[in-house]
Amino acid sequence: MPNFKLTIEYDGTDFHGWQAQKGLRTVQQEIEKALSIMCKEPVRITGSGRTDAGVHALGQVANFKVQTNITPVAFVAGLNSLLAPDVCIKECQVVPDTFHARFDAKSKTYLYRILNNPVRSAVLRRYTWHIKKKLDTDAMRSILSAWEGTHDFAALENTGSPRSNTIRTVFKSSIIEKDGGIIEFRVTANGFLKNMVRNMAGILAETGLNKIGKQDVIRIIESKDRRNAPATAPPQGLFLVSVDYGDSHS
Amino acid sequence: MPNFKLTIEYDGTDFHGWQAQKGLRTVQQEIEKALSIMCKEPVRITGSGRTDAGVHALGQVANFKVQTNITPVAFVAGLNSLLAPDVCIKECQVVPDTFHARFDAKSKTYLYRILNNPVRSAVLRRYTWHIKKKLDTDAMRSILSAWEGTHDFAALENTGSPRSNTIRTVFKSSIIEKDGGIIEFRVTANGFLKNMVRNMAGILAETGLNKIGKQDVIRIIESKDRRNAPATAPPQGLFLVSVDYGDSHS
Repeated sequence: MPNFKLTIEYDGTDFHGWQAQKGLRTVQQEIEKALSIMCKEPVRITGSGRTDAGVHALGQVANFKVQTNITPVAFVAGLNSLLAPDVCIKECQVVPDTFHARFDAKSKTYLYRILNNPVRSAVLRRYTWHIKKKLDTDAMRSILSAWEGTHDFAALENTGSPRSNTIRTVFKSSIIEKDGGIIEFRVTANGFLKNMVRNMAGILAETGLNKIGKQDVIRIIESKDRRNAPATAPPQGLFLVSVDYGDSHS
Repeated sequence: MPNFKLTIEYDGTDFHGWQAQKGLRTVQQEIEKALSIMCKEPVRITGSGRTDAGVHALGQVANFKVQTNITPVAFVAGLNSLLAPDVCIKECQVVPDTFHARFDAKSKTYLYRILNNPVRSAVLRRYTWHIKKKLDTDAMRSILSAWEGTHDFAALENTGSPRSNTIRTVFKSSIIEKDGGIIEFRVTANGFLKNMVRNMAGILAETGLNKIGKQDVIRIIESKDRRNAPATAPPQGLFLVSVDYGDSHS
């Protein structure tokens, strides 16, 4: 039975997140519904991980197995015509039978976008966190090394999704300023705890306002206590950019 | 009675265009409603011109006169808290009594965005025209000179908004390729006819597909007959970027 890998983009604004939930519109269910229509049998997909309500994805990954003659190219075209405008399939490929979208993920990259302008934006409202006060991007950049490397990130995990352990390795993170007051925070790690990137964005905002510095961030992480970290940043600034599976199957 | 100039941004997706229409949600009415609440009297605004349903603006301009002690800074803050998330005031300033947002406009700049990718995009769907087939941007660039300068643009005007004359001067236009398959067409002119930029975008698409060339575009314009031009491009790719009033009042 062939194993298919999907690369998925979605605008999270009108979804209750990735994961199937009874009575709520979720990305997983919308794709399963479209796949089941195409394959004429119920199809279940396995995502690389959940995203929360309001969070977007440029390159979420999922896999599914089904006995079919439908080609990857036909899955892309067929799913994109069945799916609503706010979700689409960027790519479909046949992968080895052993490929598992969650277990085989080597790293993920997230992007968090802040709109740092005195005035809000109508066009960017769905895809940025608006912060009015001027942020000090040099200060923001100076704390990135506090979470790079392997740490226990319990202080950056919100409750609701218990993990076997809270140790993760952050491979890299960066702050880039774009035109129009947009500040982009990118972070790549071998895995993320619940709301970890949004908690990092919350810390970055406090840092940019010069309320806390690098020593505070180190103390927050070392405390392993969520209550010591600033408020979680809102979902609409967050994008799951890509999931990396190493050389094996792109 | 002070004369106020507003610079306005909106996401046109959920508006029936700029101009007030009974029973429909329009940008002009939403702003007038908010202004009337703030000023405790009916306030009417004059826009630089209409935009159609689904068209966005980064820098639409309007003016209004009202006897008030409200400062420009207070108008920005107050209107932005009253207005829905898909429209906002970027700037407010007091201008000379003679300033008129429509009559005094020296030029306008529009942006039309094409997403040129085999696959559609969930995140860009509200702000681009998706064209699957690869476009030849060199060919697109080669026709820009056909409409630069002063011409009778009757062939690029859709019916429904009769003008005293159809002669306009295009000061400049450009095609820029961005990351992710985005092609940006910008055009500045002393004025635009109804759907003129969307008809230019329609011509650019046909040119990019190598269906027509510069001589065809020259013939289309010279014919002054709308039936000779390609289909009008859809509204969601179009942004009114700015309205220029010369040195007098920015």
